[in-house]
Order: sequence, then structure tokens, then C-alpha cells
Amino acid sequence: MTIDTTTRGTVRAYHEARFQGDVTTAAAQIGEGFRFRSPFITSDSPTGHLDGLDGLLGIVTGVELISELYGETEATLVYDVHTTPAIGITQRTAEHFRLRDGRITSIELIFDAGPWQAIMSAVGTTHDEAVRTA
Amino acid sequence: MTIDTTTRGTVRAYHEARFQGDVTTAAAQIGEGFRFRSPFITSDSPTGHLDGLDGLLGIVTGVELISELYGETEATLVYDVHTTPAIGITQRTAEHFRLRDGRITSIELIFDAGPWQAIMSAVGTTHDEAVRTA
Repeated sequence: MTIDTTTRGTVRAYHEARFQGDVTTAAAQIGEGFRFRSPFITSDSPTGHLDGLDGLLGIVTGVELISELYGETEATLVYDVHTTPAIGITQRTAEHFRLRDGRITSIELIFDAGPWQAIMSAVGTTHDEAVRTA
Repeated sequence: MTIDTTTRGTVRAYHEARFQGDVTTAAAQIGEGFRFRSPFITSDSPTGHLDGLDGLLGIVTGVELISELYGETEATLVYDVHTTPAIGITQRTAEHFRLRDGRITSIELIFDAGPWQAIMSAVGTTHDEAVRTA
């Protein structure tokens, strides 16, 4: 139970810092050998996936946690990311974490990128620009 | 712990039956008021989301379970669905279950539908046809 509490503490600290735009606190939860993957980004630096976070947060109106489940060395969150009316996407997201020694060593962000691709096409955003906000 | 074991038993029975094409066993794990949602389907019948399962399984070569986490009344699985070389998609999937009295009352299937939409466009499949295999 102590281990699960540690897992929860680290993952929640990361999650909350990320959606508050606090890159320093989010990065402090990341451990060695970190790897991030989402439909738009693959990164192995501790903060590479947080580049452009301000751009993302500029269109996010709220994050609604639907589920949080913790194991000894992993966790999965499920949440909805609500966006401004101009964007109009509610992004149902799953985020799977692996941890070692109380630090996050991998994150898999799973969501349907289709709605974002439609918006990017509509506004003429390039893929390279898009990934910096993913 | 007993409750988590019940949750695990039901969810694993459903998961394995689904990918073996055993609709009867999968449906037996579904409870009243069931609701299913994926990027392609919203259904509230116990087996509506399993229509066309044979079509899906015809292109699936394997399912690789990456994570399974269980709570008292919910669970989240993360897995890769591998497909035939002709399709060439490895679908990283998260599946969130809610349960009541040992039966599944909701499933949220989260994955990036983008690669499927590209294939459907290429082969001229209509959306209605596509949802029956999702």
C-alpha cells in the first residue's frame, strides 16, 4: 500500500503540474531513461514532450479525471480534456505510466488524434507545429 | 482483495472471449444499463459493439496485453492490437471498464482512429461499414 501511495503521489503531482503549466514540477517527477509516446510525439528527453505546453493550455478549459488506477510500478489515468468553443474537442484520454524508484520512466498517451488532424488541416498547421502542442 | 479478484475475473473473461470471437461468453459478462463508446461506435445494447467482430478478428494477428489495473468497480487494460501486414496497424488501445455486481456496465475504448480512417478512405469503405468492425 505504501508503494501504491508513492505511485499515486508521483503520478498526481505530474498530472496536476502538467495541466497547470508547471514544467519544473512535472519534470521533477521524471526518472532516468524516460520515454514518452503519443499519437503526435515520440520523445526520450525529460521535458521534450512538454515543449509548447503553454500553447496547449491556451485552448484547454478544464481537465476532468474519470479514473485513476495504481499498481506498484505503473498507473493509468483516464480523463477528458475540454477545450475552448472555437476548438470544440472533448479529448477522452488514457495515460499509462511506468515508474521506477518513485519516478516516471515512461508515459503512453492514448487518444483519438482524428479530430485534431481535421482542425490542423483546416487551419493549415503543419505536422511539426502540431506536435509541439500535443 | 476479493472484490478486485472478481473485477479481474469478469474483465479478463470478457477480453479473452472478445478476441477469440466468443460473443456469447463476452456478452455474459455484460450487466444491465450497459453503455459502450469508441471512436467509431456508441452503443447501449449488450452486443451491439460486437457486431462485425469476425471482420475485425480476420485482420488481427495478435493482442499483446501491456497493463491491467483493477479497482473495486472499475478496470483499465492497455494493449496493442497487431494486424495483418496488409493493414499494417499496431493499435495501442486503452479500455476502461466500470462494473456493478461483478458485471460490466460500461466500456470506453480509447485509441487513435487516424490510421484506420486513412485505410478506410483508401479502400472506399463507408463510415457505416467501418463502425461495424470497430
